[in-house]
Amino acid sequence: MINFPIKKANITNITKQKNIKKRNLGMFLEELLNETNEYYLVNNIAVIHKKPTPVKIVNVDYPSRGEAKITEAYYTTPSTTDYNGIYKSKYIDFEAKETSVNTSFSLNNVHEHQVNHLEKIINHGGIGFFIVMFKNLDETYLLPFEILKKYWDNRFTERKSIPYQEFKENAYLIKNGYKPALDYLKIIDEFYIK
Amino acid sequence: MINFPIKKANITNITKQKNIKKRNLGMFLEELLNETNEYYLVNNIAVIHKKPTPVKIVNVDYPSRGEAKITEAYYTTPSTTDYNGIYKSKYIDFEAKETSVNTSFSLNNVHEHQVNHLEKIINHGGIGFFIVMFKNLDETYLLPFEILKKYWDNRFTERKSIPYQEFKENAYLIKNGYKPALDYLKIIDEFYIK
Repeated sequence: MINFPIKKANITNITKQKNIKKRNLGMFLEELLNETNEYYLVNNIAVIHKKPTPVKIVNVDYPSRGEAKITEAYYTTPSTTDYNGIYKSKYIDFEAKETSVNTSFSLNNVHEHQVNHLEKIINHGGIGFFIVMFKNLDETYLLPFEILKKYWDNRFTERKSIPYQEFKENAYLIKNGYKPALDYLKIIDEFYIK
Repeated sequence: MINFPIKKANITNITKQKNIKKRNLGMFLEELLNETNEYYLVNNIAVIHKKPTPVKIVNVDYPSRGEAKITEAYYTTPSTTDYNGIYKSKYIDFEAKETSVNTSFSLNNVHEHQVNHLEKIINHGGIGFFIVMFKNLDETYLLPFEILKKYWDNRFTERKSIPYQEFKENAYLIKNGYKPALDYLKIIDEFYIK
């Protein structure tokens, strides 16, 4: 009986850990991209930022003057992708995803609003894509929107994932580096801006 | 004595109200711009979004499976402006501010990171500006970055505000409308994209 509250606390902690882990999926790639974007910014190459996570704020406390502590808030669904900015006068827009599966990239990682948003961006003359990291293979690809779209449109009738082979053959491998960590603009130079 | 806790609560509430009011400064203009951007989006004119308010999340509770409640978070300083997107292949970037002063726009409303960010955007070939609403006059101006920058650079040696007259003479009045509420892209058409 004495152990009960402790056990209960442990269970809660495990659930919490699991959820946090889920939330953090993509964290490693995110860090590499943040470093890369910082490098681009500092070296005056491009201005590309990650958008803040959208949060609906319900309650704010003011424990002291000028200090605001948010005490109740919820994650909300974004209507765009996570990254955008400008490079050589071009509007750049992309979403970044990690996967620990080695054989394919599940379309469960992709949200409808991201596809719709990228499609609009391209129609207005911008450059839109996904960056997909195969974590266990240590390979990161720039996936052109057109390939994503092809699989997305057929996800109910054909397969619900993009095979790794498709990445190998038709997406662009981003070289792992030191500075910048993931030089994805090199791909933009080679294949988007001629 | 009986009244004490109630009185205390009232004082807290007043302080809270004041703080909330301060936080909401710019809310009215923000709503008009959100409506305008929604109009642009739905009518396939442009894709311009407000970025979420950046928040540093410290603690998240999981009251039930799949439900995440943020219980501790703080506002953080953004490193960019609030709005960006794409219009006619051009990268668009701006900050929006309201003022209830009728004679000038105080540069206390402007943050260094916003000026630096817009300057970078323009250097990379984007279109950057401020939208300033004189609330009591019901006039909203698109303020070209160059004018802002001129006053900003001289803010310690000359005045710390931009006179209303400068807006009248050299900024662009955005017509109030129904749909869209504030058609600022019309100014972009006339004076930025020739």
